[in-house]
Amino acid sequence: MSENITLSLEEVRQLSESVLTSNGFNQAHARAITDIIYTNQLGDCHSHGLYRLFMCVESIRSGRASGTAEPTIIDAGPAVVRANANDGISLLAMQAAMPLLIEKAKRNGIAALAINRCFHFSALWPEVEKLSEAGLAGMAMLPSHAWVAPAGGTRGLLGTNPFAFSWPRQGKAPFTFDFATSQFARGEIELYRRAGKPLPEGVAIDHEGKPTTDAEAAMHGAMLTFGGHKGSALSLMIELMAGPLIDDLTSKESMEFAEGKPEAPYHGEIILAFDPNLLSGGRVAENNERAERLFADVIDQGARLPSQRRQAAQAFNLERNALEIPKALYDDLLKLKV
Amino acid sequence: MSENITLSLEEVRQLSESVLTSNGFNQAHARAITDIIYTNQLGDCHSHGLYRLFMCVESIRSGRASGTAEPTIIDAGPAVVRANANDGISLLAMQAAMPLLIEKAKRNGIAALAINRCFHFSALWPEVEKLSEAGLAGMAMLPSHAWVAPAGGTRGLLGTNPFAFSWPRQGKAPFTFDFATSQFARGEIELYRRAGKPLPEGVAIDHEGKPTTDAEAAMHGAMLTFGGHKGSALSLMIELMAGPLIDDLTSKESMEFAEGKPEAPYHGEIILAFDPNLLSGGRVAENNERAERLFADVIDQGARLPSQRRQAAQAFNLERNALEIPKALYDDLLKLKV
Repeated sequence: MSENITLSLEEVRQLSESVLTSNGFNQAHARAITDIIYTNQLGDCHSHGLYRLFMCVESIRSGRASGTAEPTIIDAGPAVVRANANDGISLLAMQAAMPLLIEKAKRNGIAALAINRCFHFSALWPEVEKLSEAGLAGMAMLPSHAWVAPAGGTRGLLGTNPFAFSWPRQGKAPFTFDFATSQFARGEIELYRRAGKPLPEGVAIDHEGKPTTDAEAAMHGAMLTFGGHKGSALSLMIELMAGPLIDDLTSKESMEFAEGKPEAPYHGEIILAFDPNLLSGGRVAENNERAERLFADVIDQGARLPSQRRQAAQAFNLERNALEIPKALYDDLLKLKV
Repeated sequence: MSENITLSLEEVRQLSESVLTSNGFNQAHARAITDIIYTNQLGDCHSHGLYRLFMCVESIRSGRASGTAEPTIIDAGPAVVRANANDGISLLAMQAAMPLLIEKAKRNGIAALAINRCFHFSALWPEVEKLSEAGLAGMAMLPSHAWVAPAGGTRGLLGTNPFAFSWPRQGKAPFTFDFATSQFARGEIELYRRAGKPLPEGVAIDHEGKPTTDAEAAMHGAMLTFGGHKGSALSLMIELMAGPLIDDLTSKESMEFAEGKPEAPYHGEIILAFDPNLLSGGRVAENNERAERLFADVIDQGARLPSQRRQAAQAFNLERNALEIPKALYDDLLKLKV
């Protein structure tokens, strides 16, 4: 049993902003970071909510992430925006570049945003949902650290490499998913290790590249991708799309850069935006209905759309204008303030 | 033991073209289709090589696919090409639209091609490799027929929904993958059924939505996606990206349209092209080296890059200017000529 406390939504924002500003983030960074931390916490996504403030603070205390860097927004082609975070956390650069990405996607039919030279700690779903709020479909991906072996391999090379997608639904919360291409998240392995529980098969290999269900051995070996060689291929694609394609680091390079420190990983990110209007030849309403029939066919057979649970939590917490977090987390966060 | 015969590469092309033209495809369609059938056969991809001529011929004999339709190429936005196949096989439309897609990607940094109103039978890897030959990264996806249940569901809704990606490597064959998002291909289930062999677990459900290893029951039930709920989410994304986004059919709509006939499925396709030059800020050479280090790290640990085997077969068959196919297939193909 863990004790929870209830915070008003305004208190959640204030807590996040005050932790960040008291540690050297300027107001602009603190707001951009809080916007995403708040959005995750609102959906009861605890792993990417207030908990991530520890990683933000680690990143600035180590002296490597900047809390004041102005992102540079570069109009790099008719359908390309490049946002250089200049060693800041990714989110101010993302927020600053998003209006131009949306404008370019609506003008051209499709557009890409490359975020470079950023520290990154956040889930991708709020970013692709920003595109869906603007009536666009969105896709986002990025590397992390080389903890995951390619299919048939023996050691870590790929990141947990998340992939997110969002589709705008007229008058409804968007269809959104956001998943790691590793079978497990890194933190899950750690939870099994602490609990002394064996891992399921197919999740990890040991330092010799042999399959293992021992979480301790897995921490010294490598994780595996979801979906065997198909998931491994996707993960390699993500390395390429959010690495060499946009002139930024692979997961292996990012891990070398980090030198084992518990900061947020430093690398790039790519976000793609698709305009249903130009891509459908102007037939948005008819195709919104077609997509709705698809979703209804998922739900009618007892399956769930991705994000349904999270979106329900968001609606519930918004309605009551409050949310719950563990008391222990709250106390630890107060200690982060300096 | 099956008997093989050896054909020169020119004989492969001639065989394909003569089967097609004798069944009512005009020269332009026959060449565009043969180009892809030949490319698959050259890589020993038998399932998408000459074998697919049966499906092409079925499609025209049923009177639904046109063997003479001129595709309409529409400049639908600065970064969007829409190619209406006008009820022909997709490949002439794809071939006709590809130069404009490449031009738009190089000018804008990213571009999309929507192929609409097409019958589709072909693997996607040759299409994304055409982009890589032009120095671009490519992504392609499309629906099929509603044989695959969403995660947690009980009946077919999604297609086998293939996803392909290609990355240009300077001076080398591209990094390419092309996989179905279903756990198995439809034809594989059929092979298990004929052989009376039990399916592996996790591949299919019966008509009541219960897990089954009985291939006969699976044929009357539904297949499952690879990778559980993550593969299912990807497959839903593909339905949206190559369906409602581009004003074309979902797998369920395509299956209803087919009325159980063994033609090629009728629906749309989306192809995305990415320019490494504009997206990397002009740093293509440095990032080609970065990608090569990633590939070397895959191979050095004993893993294989996707398509390595197929690309080796292509090189081998090109070198000897000949390839082998089963004698029985050859005889059946000759009978297709009218």
